[in-house]
Amino acid sequence: MSGKYFSESFNPRFSDTDALGHINNTMVPVWFEGARDPIFKWFSPELDTSNWKLILAKIDASFHGQMYYGQEMEVRTYIGRIGSSSFDVYQELWQSNELCASGTAVMVHYDYIKQETVKIPSEIRENFKRYLKV
Amino acid sequence: MSGKYFSESFNPRFSDTDALGHINNTMVPVWFEGARDPIFKWFSPELDTSNWKLILAKIDASFHGQMYYGQEMEVRTYIGRIGSSSFDVYQELWQSNELCASGTAVMVHYDYIKQETVKIPSEIRENFKRYLKV
Amino acid sequence: MSGKYFSESFNPRFSDTDALGHINNTMVPVWFEGARDPIFKWFSPELDTSNWKLILAKIDASFHGQMYYGQEMEVRTYIGRIGSSSFDVYQELWQSNELCASGTAVMVHYDYIKQETVKIPSEIRENFKRYLKV
Amino acid sequence: MSGKYFSESFNPRFSDTDALGHINNTMVPVWFEGARDPIFKWFSPELDTSNWKLILAKIDASFHGQMYYGQEMEVRTYIGRIGSSSFDVYQELWQSNELCASGTAVMVHYDYIKQETVKIPSEIRENFKRYLKV
Repeated sequence: MSGKYFSESFNPRFSDTDALGHINNTMVPVWFEGARDPIFKWFSPELDTSNWKLILAKIDASFHGQMYYGQEMEVRTYIGRIGSSSFDVYQELWQSNELCASGTAVMVHYDYIKQETVKIPSEIRENFKRYLKV
Repeated sequence: MSGKYFSESFNPRFSDTDALGHINNTMVPVWFEGARDPIFKWFSPELDTSNWKLILAKIDASFHGQMYYGQEMEVRTYIGRIGSSSFDVYQELWQSNELCASGTAVMVHYDYIKQETVKIPSEIRENFKRYLKV
Repeated sequence: MSGKYFSESFNPRFSDTDALGHINNTMVPVWFEGARDPIFKWFSPELDTSNWKLILAKIDASFHGQMYYGQEMEVRTYIGRIGSSSFDVYQELWQSNELCASGTAVMVHYDYIKQETVKIPSEIRENFKRYLKV
Repeated sequence: MSGKYFSESFNPRFSDTDALGHINNTMVPVWFEGARDPIFKWFSPELDTSNWKLILAKIDASFHGQMYYGQEMEVRTYIGRIGSSSFDVYQELWQSNELCASGTAVMVHYDYIKQETVKIPSEIRENFKRYLKV
């Protein structure tokens, strides 16, 4: 069993390709950040960037197979780890039933005014549990 | 009457914003090119970039209003002008019922091997007419 | 005589290419905006985005020749037109002694608080004159 | 002792910022890939993408501090690990004497025709040793 996940589908764009004829790897962090919107909304329901509450500490991405222009893609977004004030988002990029890339973003709940980490509220922890990758 | 158009909707991404708090203008040419896919398919049904038949001669984009993260956008794509071997694609970017940007891309039907312009085939001209902005 | 211009040189990146093997056209507005920094500094010497004074009204870009990865590029930035509260920046992209792209950005001097256009100060008009494309 | 490294300096662009007022994290993989050019040249001296010999297996990036528009940045590029057919590139992003981000790219020497990994030639191994992060 792999847990519930957020799914976002889209078509890669011509400008996402590179001279090797495939999708360039640098698009993956862009797409993964975009697909974290549902998680951002748990912290900022209106996605109000003037009152943001998260900091990105680390990302990684592993490339398992070529990604192609002209075929729809899907990003699947899970919670990978639940910490006290930080958490991992684990994401997969699928195209034509193949896992093309996967990666983890380490995010920290943060008070930009006080410049300090903040404990993750219990109601958000409950949300996390429902999307936890198992 | 404004003619039939191709519609593509999507959510702008966090990374599309800039320090002024809105969407950065440089995303508009990216989105407009992406939304020209249905027109590219008339020339290359499989979007096969190893057998591409179009060259971009010119783009412009006018910015009518701010674009925001957190609200869905729609690109509407029309044919703006039908020439002998070239044509204009006219596009609009809408968000929350406001026209935020509009622009034209001048494209040329081109044979990359012979390095010369090619007349637009009559069946594609028929497609153009159905999407002609009037 | 073509007037004084700002020159910025850089190497295009692998991720700037597309599947046709050249540089993708969507990079040109990015590079042109980047090369407008010296002009932005006349309005905001510290490039302080929390006190920004310019709005972009329109851009265009014409593509004259292919741009290649692996060869240095230069953006040349001129003032193209001096209006009362708006002005044009005219820019050229050169690679290997060839003009690859050119374009104009229409910018407006703007008060974001009052939400109104503002006359261009006379000392900035003097700067404009020195870089006016003739 | 930290070894010899490749240094690339540049100014971040307005479009690299995001709504939090800093540089968006997704630029870091773009800049790091761009700064791997000197290493790409060991495998493809002309950076000829029609005869490319490397595949990217994995990237990571850790974010240590905010990055700002208006201040020059430097990417420092080292070899992080020398394997038989694969190797790690370790990179750091510096701004105003602060380490803002660091990361590793795992690259594989690859024959795209035969679709198999290839041993790293001994002359390139010698180059690697000179830039090995210690």
